[in-house]
Amino acid sequence: MLTAIRYEPGTLYLLDQRVLPAEERWLALATASEVAEAIRCMVVRGAPAIAIAAGYGLALAARRGSDLDEAARTLVAARPTAVNLRWGVDRVRQARDIEAAARDLHDDDLRVNLALGEHGATLLDGGVLTICNTGALATGGHGTALGMVRSAIAHGRDIHLYACETRPWFQGARLTAWECAQDRIRCTLVADGAAASVLASGRARAVVVGCDRVARNGDTANKLGTLNLAVIARHFGVPLYVAMPWSSYDPATATGRDIIVEERDPAELGGYQHGPVDAWNPAFDVTPAELVSAWVTETGVVRVLGEG
Amino acid sequence: MLTAIRYEPGTLYLLDQRVLPAEERWLALATASEVAEAIRCMVVRGAPAIAIAAGYGLALAARRGSDLDEAARTLVAARPTAVNLRWGVDRVRQARDIEAAARDLHDDDLRVNLALGEHGATLLDGGVLTICNTGALATGGHGTALGMVRSAIAHGRDIHLYACETRPWFQGARLTAWECAQDRIRCTLVADGAAASVLASGRARAVVVGCDRVARNGDTANKLGTLNLAVIARHFGVPLYVAMPWSSYDPATATGRDIIVEERDPAELGGYQHGPVDAWNPAFDVTPAELVSAWVTETGVVRVLGEG
Repeated sequence: MLTAIRYEPGTLYLLDQRVLPAEERWLALATASEVAEAIRCMVVRGAPAIAIAAGYGLALAARRGSDLDEAARTLVAARPTAVNLRWGVDRVRQARDIEAAARDLHDDDLRVNLALGEHGATLLDGGVLTICNTGALATGGHGTALGMVRSAIAHGRDIHLYACETRPWFQGARLTAWECAQDRIRCTLVADGAAASVLASGRARAVVVGCDRVARNGDTANKLGTLNLAVIARHFGVPLYVAMPWSSYDPATATGRDIIVEERDPAELGGYQHGPVDAWNPAFDVTPAELVSAWVTETGVVRVLGEG
Repeated sequence: MLTAIRYEPGTLYLLDQRVLPAEERWLALATASEVAEAIRCMVVRGAPAIAIAAGYGLALAARRGSDLDEAARTLVAARPTAVNLRWGVDRVRQARDIEAAARDLHDDDLRVNLALGEHGATLLDGGVLTICNTGALATGGHGTALGMVRSAIAHGRDIHLYACETRPWFQGARLTAWECAQDRIRCTLVADGAAASVLASGRARAVVVGCDRVARNGDTANKLGTLNLAVIARHFGVPLYVAMPWSSYDPATATGRDIIVEERDPAELGGYQHGPVDAWNPAFDVTPAELVSAWVTETGVVRVLGEG
């Protein structure tokens, strides 16, 4: 099974997702702060995957006898938006056997994704539009939104995935396309600007995305561009499904307004290196709950029943 | 004034827009087929600009005593979507003095854009979202949608432009950002996926775009991603203005369904060079007339009055 995270006592190996698919380079990390830096600079990305990596970061700190509270703070601070990061670090920090807890977190994530995929499989058929990478590379294996696609295919559904490039990091073009090629999932890459064309032409009949934090009221933070897809899906009468492991649900955050959206270096945007103009580079956006058709979790499909 | 097209008898000079802003490289072309190739491979782009370049292509053919009908066919076939290309070639082809007609076409375009800008200037104030490049680089000067912005600023409007990167060619990130920097237009570059965030946050209160062909009923073909913006603008109650020189209006095409949308090489998409997945790379999309608030032309602002 495709994996991007391997742990051996004292060393965390991460597949460097900044250079895929041109190169399959594994980095070996020995300390929690190395792990935090790898999360910050996107060697590893995807809400579940950064939680798993951070759990192992604590395991590295425990093995070296480092201050676990300080390690936990450093890891949680690496990226602000995904709530899984804090959740994973808290869960591992509270355990007696830190290393075993980190492994459990990793193993559980795969089980969660397989269960989530089963619940979501029947929602998908035919063309499906997605954004970013929500597959094995973004998780402990199988994936969340891409996991639903994998499960649907396993159930014999004739899925054709349309993957948005996902600027500025090209997670769709580089990572989802690569995963699909590895697993022979039928996948057509499109520019982010083609989303409306994909739906208007009937190529896709559902949109499926992951999430980084879902507020108590269902407002959903996910990769920048998700709100575009949500509005466009609603316009064309196409359902939007959010693959949401419960570790991404944050009842402590009341609404989307309370979610901190990470703003990254403008230099990630194209042409910026040559031009003296300003740039705005939020890594996420927040989709209001009313634009989400259902949240697919490891325990079942959650729908908000409308006023009607 | 910023220009990307210069003609001297027997030679057409084009600023190579594929390498801007890293490099300001001028290419010297001597034949109509060289001009057609420059249009095809996007040395010059933008519906008005390719019409002007094609007009000069005919002038080159006339000077060399080449077959003008063949030259006209080659030039018109270079790109299928923008109707200005055929319109410009037909206009120059019918003239007695081909070279003078080509120069007239170029001069007229600047006048048209200045007039269009005047008509559109009062529609814009504060934050404005745009896509692609619709400025001097895309036209004979001043620009269409970006011309409206220039004119609005000249009228003292406090405009802040938000420019979508515009994948896959980055016309926004490379060309619009560069033009804005040259002319000190306040401009913030954003990823295409940030369009909904720009409007949801109130940063922009209008969307302004160019067009490549407007069908008789108002359906509007423009750079891929325009339909995304149109749907998102409608959702957030923000007006969408299409800057449309009458040379882009095509009464011979009944509706958007009849517009040929050019599909370009999938290799233009990110990551594609490394991955064996399929890709779909339409260069344009078609926005239904009902999503357009107004078309701004050189003779005035055209609105379709609703059923209400």
